[in-house]
Amino acid sequence: MKLIRYGQPGHEKPGVILNDQQLDVSAFGEDYNEAFFATDGLTRLTEFVRANTGKLPAVAANERLGAPVARPSKIVCVGLNYADHARETGATPPPEPVLFFKSTTALIGPNDDIVIPKNSTKTDWEVELAVVIGKQASYVEEADAHEYIAGYALHNDVSEREFQLERSGTWDKGKGCDTFAPIGPFLATPDEVADVDNLRLWLSVNGQKMQDGTTANLIFRIPFLISYISQFMTLLPGDIISTGTPAGVGLGFNPPVYLKPGDVVELGIDGLGTSRQELRAYTKQ
Amino acid sequence: MKLIRYGQPGHEKPGVILNDQQLDVSAFGEDYNEAFFATDGLTRLTEFVRANTGKLPAVAANERLGAPVARPSKIVCVGLNYADHARETGATPPPEPVLFFKSTTALIGPNDDIVIPKNSTKTDWEVELAVVIGKQASYVEEADAHEYIAGYALHNDVSEREFQLERSGTWDKGKGCDTFAPIGPFLATPDEVADVDNLRLWLSVNGQKMQDGTTANLIFRIPFLISYISQFMTLLPGDIISTGTPAGVGLGFNPPVYLKPGDVVELGIDGLGTSRQELRAYTKQ
Repeated sequence: MKLIRYGQPGHEKPGVILNDQQLDVSAFGEDYNEAFFATDGLTRLTEFVRANTGKLPAVAANERLGAPVARPSKIVCVGLNYADHARETGATPPPEPVLFFKSTTALIGPNDDIVIPKNSTKTDWEVELAVVIGKQASYVEEADAHEYIAGYALHNDVSEREFQLERSGTWDKGKGCDTFAPIGPFLATPDEVADVDNLRLWLSVNGQKMQDGTTANLIFRIPFLISYISQFMTLLPGDIISTGTPAGVGLGFNPPVYLKPGDVVELGIDGLGTSRQELRAYTKQ
Repeated sequence: MKLIRYGQPGHEKPGVILNDQQLDVSAFGEDYNEAFFATDGLTRLTEFVRANTGKLPAVAANERLGAPVARPSKIVCVGLNYADHARETGATPPPEPVLFFKSTTALIGPNDDIVIPKNSTKTDWEVELAVVIGKQASYVEEADAHEYIAGYALHNDVSEREFQLERSGTWDKGKGCDTFAPIGPFLATPDEVADVDNLRLWLSVNGQKMQDGTTANLIFRIPFLISYISQFMTLLPGDIISTGTPAGVGLGFNPPVYLKPGDVVELGIDGLGTSRQELRAYTKQ
């Protein structure tokens, strides 16, 4: 199944994609949040969709999409998880996963604008495979990790390099700015993804291909990551893990290349759709 | 006003402390969460309490207390914000605040047990003054920061030093383990605190005083911190900022001293009450 949330920001309704058709499932009566995943919502939703075949209203193709998960308790990200990306940033691949958080206030829809923060000169892109957690996970064994996966989604782990690397302290400062986490277009349940360890992922800026990698090159794979992270904190249903980015980010160019207002970022992962964000300058609302 | 949440974990009810009496305000019908703070809940609660003077049921003194805030979207912490603490860890005071996150799954009540994580040998204590945000904060001016404060609370920023400092990457790994954020006993609104820049804060382990500091020694004060953090992310109502710890943590001893099962940590801040946590080893639940 493919899950979407559509409508105005903060007022998204649940939907699904079935045979390439976007369908409204507001009548299911639940948002895709912690409670939904925690109570086997995916199974219940599947049954609801089956019971209502042919009766679900279509969602117009031009409807805005929101992030396919509502208010996760956290977004945990993995840094330097592709050797080629570690190299381009001047880092050596770490002996164990580097973890950091994105503020959940950074979440936006897949095609919303990215706002360049005030005083930012180094806003950068990172195409990533995100994993959504399906049930509470603490001290999970790697062999059991697949049981904890609700699905997968496309994520642009937008990053402000000066905030991240030159402003004292941890990376968190440059990762959680508003709009820095466009996720979607949809959440795909594991059955929709043939081989999650062999997905091409790419990103272009103004039509020029910047990143073109494959999840086959992940240093630490998803079952290991879920097990690993769950040694340090409990993952809740709906929580998002972003697995890292391959080479080709702006920071890796010589000299570095960063995003400016009007730029258009497009990205995609095999089987997980594409997204498109336009950059704009911060303006007081 | 002083706000408490009491009852079993996950089922806490709202209460207040009035003239040193714990009173139940379940009839108010709201938990102290983002929606409460976002809709001027503190004013509405004050009016409710006034309208029900003499009619509110007492809360037994032996009731368990939960964290006084329900499911904040994030806990943002400030590192190395007391010069004496920076010195004891071998760090120099940073030119601007060091920020990191605690997973919100770490939140527990003020007198709940702290669980030493599996494979932990370096679980440490940190008494801190926490600030709870009262309204959505983005690019806040330092002069306006006071408008964004719902109140203050006592926090033990429990930290696993090996996870934090020796396991690759940012500090987040050692800060968000389950039970690593005992907060409370209560949330005190600003009018309850005479001078937040001059509060004594202390912590003892097994009756031995380990930390004894004053918020007068904060390197970066609260209005600056709110303004600063809000440049990097939006703070939501109910979000928690923990302002850093003074000298006297286990890491600062030579050799370092860490917590073990059966240890008892007690801590307090002038006007914000005291809390007490017993340490226990992790056991599979």
